[in-house]
Parts: sequence; structure tokens; C-alpha cells
Amino acid sequence: MRIACFDDDRIGLVRDGRVLDITDRLTARLAPGPGSLARRMVAHFAHIRPLLEELAAGAGPSAGLPLDEVRLRSPIPDPTKIVAAPVNYRDHQTEMSKAFHISALGFCLKSPSSLLDPGGTVRLPYCDRRFDHEAEFALVVGRRATHVTPEEALDHVFGYTGLMDITMRGGEDRSTRKSFDTFTPMGPWLVTPDELGSPDDVGLELTVNGAPRQKANTRDLIWSAAHFLAYVSTVTVLKPGDVITTGTPAGVAPIQDGDAVELIVDRVGRLTVGVTAESAVPCPTGGAGRGPVPPAAPRTGLSEL
Amino acid sequence: MRIACFDDDRIGLVRDGRVLDITDRLTARLAPGPGSLARRMVAHFAHIRPLLEELAAGAGPSAGLPLDEVRLRSPIPDPTKIVAAPVNYRDHQTEMSKAFHISALGFCLKSPSSLLDPGGTVRLPYCDRRFDHEAEFALVVGRRATHVTPEEALDHVFGYTGLMDITMRGGEDRSTRKSFDTFTPMGPWLVTPDELGSPDDVGLELTVNGAPRQKANTRDLIWSAAHFLAYVSTVTVLKPGDVITTGTPAGVAPIQDGDAVELIVDRVGRLTVGVTAESAVPCPTGGAGRGPVPPAAPRTGLSEL
Repeated sequence: MRIACFDDDRIGLVRDGRVLDITDRLTARLAPGPGSLARRMVAHFAHIRPLLEELAAGAGPSAGLPLDEVRLRSPIPDPTKIVAAPVNYRDHQTEMSKAFHISALGFCLKSPSSLLDPGGTVRLPYCDRRFDHEAEFALVVGRRATHVTPEEALDHVFGYTGLMDITMRGGEDRSTRKSFDTFTPMGPWLVTPDELGSPDDVGLELTVNGAPRQKANTRDLIWSAAHFLAYVSTVTVLKPGDVITTGTPAGVAPIQDGDAVELIVDRVGRLTVGVTAESAVPCPTGGAGRGPVPPAAPRTGLSEL
Repeated sequence: MRIACFDDDRIGLVRDGRVLDITDRLTARLAPGPGSLARRMVAHFAHIRPLLEELAAGAGPSAGLPLDEVRLRSPIPDPTKIVAAPVNYRDHQTEMSKAFHISALGFCLKSPSSLLDPGGTVRLPYCDRRFDHEAEFALVVGRRATHVTPEEALDHVFGYTGLMDITMRGGEDRSTRKSFDTFTPMGPWLVTPDELGSPDDVGLELTVNGAPRQKANTRDLIWSAAHFLAYVSTVTVLKPGDVITTGTPAGVAPIQDGDAVELIVDRVGRLTVGVTAESAVPCPTGGAGRGPVPPAAPRTGLSEL
């Protein structure tokens, strides 16, 4: 099952290039509560799933709206946290010239306010710093999870999606470098575990203006999705709708004004965003030239910023 | 005005050692919406304030419940983010042996799930790592804030409170080291700006088992509350109920099983928590011995962990 948010807080099932709007049925079935309708659906999915299956089975092939007539939104608009894996692919560890990786670093947090809808535009805040794309495979938590084991972890997943962890290079705290508004494009929708299959064998590929930049498979993660979720749950209680993103492989490189960045995740879909620097100003913090810096980018001198 | 959360999601005005329960009046006045009643009250305070003043004026001195008969809660149970200042007092910068401070580091994020009620117990997760108290002066955002100037910043504050930023030392990402469940005691309540006066001259003092450990005044902040809020708003949109904590002064030191930690913030109140290590296990991440480490603690060998 593929579940999208679209237009003004509407929720739909995605099938054959069309979106079947299920908002009104969900609203009628779910009790009011804190958080968006999407978050409440995630929290009560076991209860709701038969309804969704019935709606999907009862709808003809031409039911719903063509995908290109709706505006897709971030599939969860209001996670209580976005948890990111700092260095979790062996090839990215090598390019970052670090003697340590996720098992020494733990996780970092991104601001939930940094979410960006599919098709949106990443706004680069500064004219004198380097900003990189980071292609990632992400999951959304479906059930409260605390101190779960890696074996139990995937039972707590609602669905999977694509995510770009846009990142400023430098010595500022990771939360700052990764939390600028628009720095977390996510989507295009959520794919439930039964439809995705194993999260440990998912290909992902990122292009900038059509040129390949990152290509990887989640089998090369240092900590698998299950291992990472289990670890995070021993630090901080995970709640329905929370987003966990598993880290980026080698090939991170700068983005700049006018770029089109596209992430394709196997069995999930395609997430595309633009980039603008039109409101960029000089950076007020002094982290330039510090922190781990990946190799010089192939195309510009931006890596020196 | 002093506003507390208590018992099961109830909200009250604190006056003369008593809590006047205003939950039902607030519920009747505020439209349903995402987030807790406290967060909705914060978001609509301008609209609600006359009602609160009327309730306070109409209640006799013996109205309400004695403070010691209620269970105080974290004054905001569900901020969308908790933003912390890494190194923001000059004396703490010195003890951390860092050539840089907040203006090079920006901010870090703590998990909202790390909040702890006043009177609660900090649970130390690991038996082989060092955990420090950090006394802080915090504010709660009252109005959406993006790219505000330092001059405008305080207009976006709902109220002030005390906060302990409990922190594991080591090389893990700050978000991990500061986000363990129970690592953000906050309270005892919120004090509105008109009652607090200037946030740039607030004394705070932290004791462990009655012994003084940290003593400071917000006039010694490197970035004032207004400056820090304004900066954060240029990175990530701030929403009503978001918590911003301004950093800790010198004197951070380890806490351990059985400790009683107390923070007193002038014109706010007293926040007390316990500490337990009864479920501590060996740490699964390898950050020990890395990262900035403050001087050896006066009392134990824990600083070597």
C-alpha cells in the first residue's frame, strides 16, 4: 500500500498513477487527537487498515485523481522528531576521512520544521558556505518504541520513503547544519512494509540536473534500519509518525542555485526538488573550514567554502 | 502570571503557594487543534489572557489547591522542538577548553521525548559513562517566529522557566548525548514576561545534595536570550510551545545514583529532580574519551569515564 499526503492535508492511496482520496473516511473513523490526520492514521493503522483495503478493492482503475493533478506533500507533516544517522555507509565513512562512524557517533536530530514537500525548492541560506545533497532511505515509526531489540524493531515501522538530508559543511553542530527550513525533502509517499519487502536490499540513486551523484543499496549500511531503530529506541522514546533516516552513501557534493535534485528509491518512487540561493546572505556563524569535509566536488570550487 | 501544568494535563495559575485550576475554562474557550492544551493556550494567549486575569482577580486567596497537593508536570508537554545553546557563558567556554563557542557552533536539538516533570527522576542509561548536570534559563516561544531581529525577538516569547540540560560527556553527537529519556527536567512553571522582567538579569543556581555547583546570571551569556532566539529563527521556523534553552555556566559536574539536584531561577522558582542508575547498562557507542571534557569533578573519579 502506498499512502500519500496531498493538497490541503488530504490523504490518499496511490495506485497506477492515481490518488484515491480517503480523507473523509479517515476523518470519520479516527478520534480527534493531537497531531495531523496523517499522524493519527499512522498511530491507529492496525485499526484502519481493513477500511483502506476495502476502499482500494472497491475502487475501479479510473477512480481518484491523476497524480499530476495533485500537489504532493511531505507524507508526515508533523513528526515529533527526525532522527538521522551521521555516517552509516562504509564508502561515505571513507570519503569523510573519519576514523569513526555511527557506532561512535550515535544519531543527530533535524528540526521537524525543515521538512519540504516533493516538488518544493530547497532554499540555501548563505552565499559563503557549502551545502551538500545527501540521499537517504527513511522510515516512519508506526508504534511507540522504547528499548526494542533489532529483532523486534521492524514491527514498529509504519512505512518507508525517500529523504534528502541537505547539509551545510563546517564545524557548526550537526543539528544546525541540517535543520535549515526546506533542508528535509521527504517522499513522494509512504510504502507499507508488506509492499516494500526487505529494507535491507533497497537501491537508491540521486542525480543533480540529470547527472548521477550517489548510488547505493541499503545492504551496505553499517547499521541496518532495524539495528538503527533499535538503538535510537534505547535513547529516546519513538512515537508514531517519527521519522528515522538511515544515512547517506558516498558521492555527497554541493548543490547550488538552479539545480534540480532527484532521488529515486527502489520500490518507493521518485522525489524531485529544486534549489534556490536567491535569499542567501553571509553566514553569521564561524564554522567554515572546520568539521569533516568530503572530497572536492567534481564541478565547482564550492567545496572550498 | 505563573502558569503550571499539573496532574493529568491540567493547567493552573500559581499564586501564593496555590494552583488555581483553569483547565475547564481554557478547554471551553480554545478550539480543538493539534498539540496539547498547554500548547494551544500558548498559541492563543493574547486572546486568552483577559480571561485568565479575570479568573485570577475573581478568586479569593484560598482558592485553588495547595501546591504540595498537586503533581507538577513539565510546563509544555509537547514542544515541536527543544533548541539548546552549546557553549554560551564565557566561564563555561573556558572550562570546556574550547577556542570556539556558540557563534561558531550554532545550536543543537534535544529530543522532545527527553522532557522530565518537576520532582521526577533522571535515569542514567549507562554504567560506564559520565553524565553532567547543566543549569539553564529557558524560554517558551509564544508566536511563530522566522527571521526575526534581536530587537523583535522578545515579542515572540510566551514565558520563561528553568531547565536542566543533562548531558553525557564524550564524542557522540550532541543530540544523542543530550536526548536520553528524562534528560530535560523543565519547570516548575512558566512565568510571563511582564512578571519576570528583563531576561538579561536573572540569577540561577544549581545544587547537588545541597552543595553549590553552578551559580550564574544571564547577564554573562555570550548571546543573550533575544540574540539566540533571533539567530535560531533564521535557521528553523519557531512555533508556539517550542523551547529554547540558553546554555549553561561553569561548574558542570557528574551526577550519580541517589543524587538530588536542585535548580533555583530568580523570579521563576525551584526545580528539583532525583537521579537513579538502577537500570544502567554498558554503553553501546564508542564516544568515551573523546569530545570536550570539563575539569575533573571535585567529588568522584567519574570524569575519567
